Amino acid sequence: MKIAVIGLGIIGGSFCKAIKKHTGHTVIGINRTLSVAQRALDEGAIDVIGTREDLGEADVVFLCMYPQACVDFIRENGSYIKKGALVTDSSGIKRAICPELKKLSEQFGFVFVGSHPMAGKEKNGFEVSEAELYEGASFIITPCGADPKYCDILAKLALSIGFGKIKLTTPEEHDRMIAFTSQVPHVLACAYVQSPCCPNHDGFSAGSYRDVSRVANINSKLWSELFLENREPLAAELDILIQNITKIKNAVESGDRQTLTDVLEKGHLIKQNLGE
Amino acid sequence: MKIAVIGLGIIGGSFCKAIKKHTGHTVIGINRTLSVAQRALDEGAIDVIGTREDLGEADVVFLCMYPQACVDFIRENGSYIKKGALVTDSSGIKRAICPELKKLSEQFGFVFVGSHPMAGKEKNGFEVSEAELYEGASFIITPCGADPKYCDILAKLALSIGFGKIKLTTPEEHDRMIAFTSQVPHVLACAYVQSPCCPNHDGFSAGSYRDVSRVANINSKLWSELFLENREPLAAELDILIQNITKIKNAVESGDRQTLTDVLEKGHLIKQNLGE
Repeated sequence: MKIAVIGLGIIGGSFCKAIKKHTGHTVIGINRTLSVAQRALDEGAIDVIGTREDLGEADVVFLCMYPQACVDFIRENGSYIKKGALVTDSSGIKRAICPELKKLSEQFGFVFVGSHPMAGKEKNGFEVSEAELYEGASFIITPCGADPKYCDILAKLALSIGFGKIKLTTPEEHDRMIAFTSQVPHVLACAYVQSPCCPNHDGFSAGSYRDVSRVANINSKLWSELFLENREPLAAELDILIQNITKIKNAVESGDRQTLTDVLEKGHLIKQNLGE
Repeated sequence: MKIAVIGLGIIGGSFCKAIKKHTGHTVIGINRTLSVAQRALDEGAIDVIGTREDLGEADVVFLCMYPQACVDFIRENGSYIKKGALVTDSSGIKRAICPELKKLSEQFGFVFVGSHPMAGKEKNGFEVSEAELYEGASFIITPCGADPKYCDILAKLALSIGFGKIKLTTPEEHDRMIAFTSQVPHVLACAYVQSPCCPNHDGFSAGSYRDVSRVANINSKLWSELFLENREPLAAELDILIQNITKIKNAVESGDRQTLTDVLEKGHLIKQNLGE
């Protein structure tokens, strides 16, 4: 197959490298900043630097930009895409862009299937992309009404480049679950490091500090967009979290050992029942 | 030296194994449950199973029990300790027990120096102890008025068995910093996994979920004691955290992109300035 990857940041760059490492597919790299595409070519991450005119050759197109930028790109360049080609995004939110991309797919005659690779890093850009980023990770697919055979093609491609499992879901369930699994931890990390104690943690900290604060090194522009495109599910999860923290805080403050032990034990059991 | 380790759980067991691995000191293991001490002896983690009568031979004593249990142990057995011996605890809180242990040291004629090894695991007991647990970790010392030469002995011992750095501090600063670096992440983990989404996270989660939820597998009895013995500093940190999460939540809910980006960027800069 010929696979076009639009946007050679950490996500797109890692797709390119993983495809080249694991498969014989041809990778067409398209990137706004040409020097980055040139670097990808030099490193063998892509076979050719493409322009929108080359989209007509691609059997599969990965959109690896900010969420709304994916929609904008298709709006402007959708007519260049081959009829019947499979187009997927890689966005961390789905309700805000999948319906629009679905509509554009019908307009331009390609097939849209949403997807979200569950992997990332605290740094951005092609320079931190790697062929192993997706090793064993979950690849979430939102079919959005596409013929199941296209979901199959995408799932097989994902598994062939290192992903460990496929999760099929709706944009609604995706966004609700991602608010919990990914967005809340990013909110937490940013909130946590704003304690006046943080700059002096060295010598007093170990794994717990490291783990909670890790993703505070956030791309504030990207994550603001992700949060605002997932307003209600995220706010609802944050409400639940604030309530649960407050419950523990009140038990600590009032010296209520029984309630405190009960709440902590509940957390322990949830984690234990998950086998984690 | 002859070193007595009282309490062969993960902390005490790891001290024994690290001492045996790195030094030629003799380790006397004392444990309430004899079968555990026998296992430690069989595995070569200790040289001899001791009783309180053997405390008279120890140059250094590590108390590795729950905080108040350390105080109780000394109250009952302090008279068996050699005059001038160095006694340290390994508790995660300091204000609640150091003054009492200091008083007991004067009563019984030994030297007390508080300490706290900054390492742990999500599991407990001798079976998960290991010689490498403290490798590179910080060893916090609260001198509590002891002659600096005893702090030196303890610091050198800690560095000789694998610790990476020594932090000297007061019980007050210790408890304030530990509320932030260790206790808040444990509260968070327990609060976080109590979202209704948690049991269904598989397929939707990656490193962020794993890291924030890791320590939810908590020993609820031990941590209730640690939290309640550090009531004010912990409640104050939780208040700050709740305020910071609420600030982000309000910005998300009201769609205030500028405030949201600013708060996230602040978190990013704090983490970046720490070089993390």
